[in-house]
Amino acid sequence: MTDTEPADRRRRLSLRTSRMEALSDGIFAIAATLLVLDLAIPKVSSDVSRSLLEQWPTYLAYLVSFATIGNAWLNHSVITEYLERADAILLRLNLVLLFFVSVLPFPTHMLAEYISSENAERVAVTVYGLNLLAIGAFTSLTWHYAISEGLVRRDNKEEEVRAISRKLDPSLVSYAVAIGIGLLWPQVAVVLYLIIALFVIIPFRAVFRLIRRGRTRALTGQD
Amino acid sequence: MTDTEPADRRRRLSLRTSRMEALSDGIFAIAATLLVLDLAIPKVSSDVSRSLLEQWPTYLAYLVSFATIGNAWLNHSVITEYLERADAILLRLNLVLLFFVSVLPFPTHMLAEYISSENAERVAVTVYGLNLLAIGAFTSLTWHYAISEGLVRRDNKEEEVRAISRKLDPSLVSYAVAIGIGLLWPQVAVVLYLIIALFVIIPFRAVFRLIRRGRTRALTGQD
Amino acid sequence: MTDTEPADRRRRLSLRTSRMEALSDGIFAIAATLLVLDLAIPKVSSDVSRSLLEQWPTYLAYLVSFATIGNAWLNHSVITEYLERADAILLRLNLVLLFFVSVLPFPTHMLAEYISSENAERVAVTVYGLNLLAIGAFTSLTWHYAISEGLVRRDNKEEEVRAISRKLDPSLVSYAVAIGIGLLWPQVAVVLYLIIALFVIIPFRAVFRLIRRGRTRALTGQD
Amino acid sequence: MTDTEPADRRRRLSLRTSRMEALSDGIFAIAATLLVLDLAIPKVSSDVSRSLLEQWPTYLAYLVSFATIGNAWLNHSVITEYLERADAILLRLNLVLLFFVSVLPFPTHMLAEYISSENAERVAVTVYGLNLLAIGAFTSLTWHYAISEGLVRRDNKEEEVRAISRKLDPSLVSYAVAIGIGLLWPQVAVVLYLIIALFVIIPFRAVFRLIRRGRTRALTGQD
Repeated sequence: MTDTEPADRRRRLSLRTSRMEALSDGIFAIAATLLVLDLAIPKVSSDVSRSLLEQWPTYLAYLVSFATIGNAWLNHSVITEYLERADAILLRLNLVLLFFVSVLPFPTHMLAEYISSENAERVAVTVYGLNLLAIGAFTSLTWHYAISEGLVRRDNKEEEVRAISRKLDPSLVSYAVAIGIGLLWPQVAVVLYLIIALFVIIPFRAVFRLIRRGRTRALTGQD
Repeated sequence: MTDTEPADRRRRLSLRTSRMEALSDGIFAIAATLLVLDLAIPKVSSDVSRSLLEQWPTYLAYLVSFATIGNAWLNHSVITEYLERADAILLRLNLVLLFFVSVLPFPTHMLAEYISSENAERVAVTVYGLNLLAIGAFTSLTWHYAISEGLVRRDNKEEEVRAISRKLDPSLVSYAVAIGIGLLWPQVAVVLYLIIALFVIIPFRAVFRLIRRGRTRALTGQD
Repeated sequence: MTDTEPADRRRRLSLRTSRMEALSDGIFAIAATLLVLDLAIPKVSSDVSRSLLEQWPTYLAYLVSFATIGNAWLNHSVITEYLERADAILLRLNLVLLFFVSVLPFPTHMLAEYISSENAERVAVTVYGLNLLAIGAFTSLTWHYAISEGLVRRDNKEEEVRAISRKLDPSLVSYAVAIGIGLLWPQVAVVLYLIIALFVIIPFRAVFRLIRRGRTRALTGQD
Repeated sequence: MTDTEPADRRRRLSLRTSRMEALSDGIFAIAATLLVLDLAIPKVSSDVSRSLLEQWPTYLAYLVSFATIGNAWLNHSVITEYLERADAILLRLNLVLLFFVSVLPFPTHMLAEYISSENAERVAVTVYGLNLLAIGAFTSLTWHYAISEGLVRRDNKEEEVRAISRKLDPSLVSYAVAIGIGLLWPQVAVVLYLIIALFVIIPFRAVFRLIRRGRTRALTGQD
């Protein structure tokens, strides 16, 4: 992968990636599912539907966080697909990434709570954005470390490896921009996070492709 | 599997299904287990048994949700058994499915809370039913997408693949019917969900088969 | 394994056991870890140590439940070690087992709350015991079903399979006896559960063996 | 590995390590993620940032515990990398280790709550330290047991096995020293735990190596 491969590589510990994948999947799964504990049930009243609808900031925060965790998991699973072995430092970089994933329910809760109060909102949106940025940054750092240390499989195509780098790095820029915007107009930043979230989690292409395929099949009579 | 296989398939990312299975198992397991946090302990009183029995709507909601998650997991594990590889879109469809699985504790809590109050009950039963329907719909969508994109193993028998499709799709109809009934008679819909749940989770056939086998053995003296 | 193997076996769905193992490990892990949420922190006071010690029923319930889940997991992992394939009914029996594992935090909480109040204590100890019995019963049922349906690997030694059966079934009797005792003397039943728990979780043999080995090594100067 | 291998080894149950790894990863992941539930959201006020900053003991406790669990997981994954098979006693030693991992959120919560009150602080720091010590001790015990029973793979290099022993055992001494210091100066012990935590979780070497590599590449124009 690189001819600057360190001389000390053979002395370093070489580990399977299965444990790292299992811990990561566990933490991604739990962080995503714990978010539901923040969805409070309104008290029984004459108009429960309205009370439920008034909780929209909570649903919004839940949706954005779930989609962000899902997105981080997608990137993570693509990265580990290319890994051959892990070393002790890669595992730690991964642990820092998992730290920021597991802490996400906290700023999510904050966002849901503070979204309608002027000053607190700005704090919440900024902390939330920094958390999303940290998740992106350590995903990217883990990937670049794996490449530079020759931990990716040698049969990977050079162009595919570059494609992943090209995909991971720009998202950092967009998060940084959204954080900057959020300092001035907090609610715009939330909308930006929502757009990114919806763009990521809804598989538009899949839906379109299925519809197209379905039509083709209806016309040709295939199953 | 299908001769409408897309020309662009080779250019798309092809991934192992192990990570997708691990995240899914994690979220199924956590969503199923978090439900227990809703089972509140009545305060110590002269008649604790009665206070416990009066909580029956909570137990009912817990049981129906656990059985539904269990059922969704059964279908999911059958589907992944037939998968050879995943692509980025399949992973996202799966993430949307997992979203609806992980959010289920929320309408479950709502159902348990609102079941005895007239107006709120209708809202809770409908939201709950829509969640069950969404789980079924995205399970089915994931499966049909996998078939149409040629992601299932080629050595699968055509008839087995059709059998799974035949099994997944009708459940969508029954959920839709139950939601409709729930708009008029909410408690009937809950009973319907319970019947589906019990039908799914209690392995009647296993019990009968074991009893029959046990008798045969008692007669023939085998172990 | 058995010559009463059903004629319809080839028509039934045959599944890998890996998904079943993953879901089970997830639910065992979560149920065991959620128990910690019941350990409340006493308010800051002049004598915090004493307030902490007065919470002993909570610790006791936590310890017994953790050990019971650990024990159930041990049995479960031995069983799946012998399995070759799963069928749809085995997966459901396993789901019922997981249901009783995931619900255990509820009677555990109840036990911790009610242990010092006379009447409630009896209810809590009985419900708790029934839950332990159900976990044992469905572990045993899953195993016997797997044997009778020929789902265990053919290269397993007959005597090992019998040894597992001999180990699983008596524990059902001891739980049933403890439940009966608990109806008369609830606190005795808790002590019995504690004894079973300590007996299971503390690896006495390992400690003794290590000490013995350590001595041998000290004498012979080996590493 | 050792010529004191017991004569009764062949009669003991020999198990795959995959289930043990899966349960462990699950419990490590959940314990690490449940910690986030303790991070409370301050009420909306004129100065939310300040209220958030005043919660520093909670963040500190969260960080130390996450890093400790991460560290325990790193050691655990190195150990299982060397394991060939597990026996029933190793699984139980591992369960005791997992017990102390899963209980860690309790003293973490205590530490966060009591850190500013004089007497309670000492109790919290000591209980917390004992929990960290127990995690270290059972990690070490599991490893030594595996070596002494010949459960590690035979193709492992003797020197690597010794290196792991040399790494695991001293941390026990440092935890014991920190607990002793904590009895006199509780806050110093917390700082010590923080130093250990930061030392473990931040991959200083990785950052430096990446920077150095980046410079080399910038100079030589490689990718």
